[in-house]
Amino acid sequence: GVEASVQLQPDMELIGVFSRRQGIETVSGVPTYTMEDIPNFKGKIDVMVLCGGSATDLPVIGPEVAASFNTIDSFDTHAKIPEYFAAMDNASKKGNKISIISVGWDPGMFSLNRLYAESILVQGSTYTFWGKGVSQGHSDAIRRIEGVKNAIQYTVPIEDAVEQVRSGSEPELTTRQKHLRECYVVPEEGADKAAIETAIKTMPNYFSDYDTTVTFITEEELKAHHSKMPHGGFVIRTGETGCEGNKHVIEYSLKLNSNQEFTGSVLVAYARAAHRLSVKGESGARSVFDIAPAMLSQMTPEELRAKML
Amino acid sequence: GVEASVQLQPDMELIGVFSRRQGIETVSGVPTYTMEDIPNFKGKIDVMVLCGGSATDLPVIGPEVAASFNTIDSFDTHAKIPEYFAAMDNASKKGNKISIISVGWDPGMFSLNRLYAESILVQGSTYTFWGKGVSQGHSDAIRRIEGVKNAIQYTVPIEDAVEQVRSGSEPELTTRQKHLRECYVVPEEGADKAAIETAIKTMPNYFSDYDTTVTFITEEELKAHHSKMPHGGFVIRTGETGCEGNKHVIEYSLKLNSNQEFTGSVLVAYARAAHRLSVKGESGARSVFDIAPAMLSQMTPEELRAKML
Repeated sequence: GVEASVQLQPDMELIGVFSRRQGIETVSGVPTYTMEDIPNFKGKIDVMVLCGGSATDLPVIGPEVAASFNTIDSFDTHAKIPEYFAAMDNASKKGNKISIISVGWDPGMFSLNRLYAESILVQGSTYTFWGKGVSQGHSDAIRRIEGVKNAIQYTVPIEDAVEQVRSGSEPELTTRQKHLRECYVVPEEGADKAAIETAIKTMPNYFSDYDTTVTFITEEELKAHHSKMPHGGFVIRTGETGCEGNKHVIEYSLKLNSNQEFTGSVLVAYARAAHRLSVKGESGARSVFDIAPAMLSQMTPEELRAKML
Repeated sequence: GVEASVQLQPDMELIGVFSRRQGIETVSGVPTYTMEDIPNFKGKIDVMVLCGGSATDLPVIGPEVAASFNTIDSFDTHAKIPEYFAAMDNASKKGNKISIISVGWDPGMFSLNRLYAESILVQGSTYTFWGKGVSQGHSDAIRRIEGVKNAIQYTVPIEDAVEQVRSGSEPELTTRQKHLRECYVVPEEGADKAAIETAIKTMPNYFSDYDTTVTFITEEELKAHHSKMPHGGFVIRTGETGCEGNKHVIEYSLKLNSNQEFTGSVLVAYARAAHRLSVKGESGARSVFDIAPAMLSQMTPEELRAKML
């Protein structure tokens, strides 16, 4: 996603892809390097876009790289953001670099929309719905069940709940009322399908709080109909203003055919901001909340005011 | 709208309302003053929210007030924004104050969404639809026609065009294909209704490029059904990423029961930002593009990262 997006930016150049894996191929033909090569590029790369995972990769790699490079990442373990921010802030300040953490769409664009909407409509309620889209974590959880050869899980927002929210009635919605979970499972030959279905539907944290459907399919059907990674969702805030209680609805929605490519595109826009802040002499960690929107654009402030305001 | 919004902000206090009109009454009971009283409040008011019109009020009042106070305004003559920005920048810098111009929803929140969406989806098309909502300018234009006692005009986005855009087909749409105009007209007694209808439908710039409906109603019907000022609209960007051309749709929409109160709420959120920038020692003109989102919130950066990211 990041590689594809950089190709579209006239003011950017992709220098290389650093990976722990051997023999990876890039679409653009840009050279690949190992993680051990990173220190050799100090001063030769303006921004490192860290595409590692939040569980074990970024907490280690993030501060290491941030000490020598401006960085962007999509750290998305919401509960651990304060801790990760502190580690990145510390590393970036030591290296006199900028790191922008938790960039993407949630956290990222959805967070921004929650913030804007709540700052404007002080009285009201905010709702976030995700999907329809593939959840990697839930797909993995199904794949770990005995007798499951392969599986994919879609998180689906419940249309009736979305409509209730849009009406401005500010409903209190349970987990079960907001989303349902659709599972497509390829069983091993001779596997106990009923047992698999029960194991999925009763799995705590992942499925037991949701209405879940399980559909058994073949590996060929999985490849043919479920190989894309769509996602998206809605952030909706409704609220009232004035003594007559006038109602308002602010809605931001994303419909993405490729979660990774869209996320990569957001990361690349924020890479531009990181470089600009660094050139201005700033250092330390930032989140999307701290970045003025103009910093993301190829256009100059004058062009933006003339053409887009 | 501004007065109502300030009441909801625990960190703000409304000091007064300055008006050219005599004998206005405030909802909150806050004192009213004349425009001539403004200089007496120098140093006693952190931010002046300028609620004047863009045609003749703000070009004069804006730079005058900006020389002595931080200001927020909703200047919305798109073509004259660069000129107005320069005048405000000059005045604010002389007074060592901050002015944030063109705040509201369009220009304002819609502009921000155009900027974010275009920065992320570099390849694609952006569409703005307005309505359903009351256009003051078009309502006034009808009221100036001979034989018209009163009138209100709604700008209505054409659902079929919105759906085409959402599909990602990136259609080229004419003015007529995007919006239609619904007019509700109270005729004078004995007025020539056919002549009024023709005068409306053939009016250049305002109506001749649109499909326009004209419905004659009584003054009572106008009061009963058309006294609110709803508005809203959509900013939609669709685009592609990657070598497979994966499609994405970013949509931001507003459904507002009171245009003025929502706009006032946006102005007040940006007033907080203006004060914060001024306290930091910054000066000069800004637009919404230049303001980091965190500046709008009552929450601290730490709270925002912990609760909203």
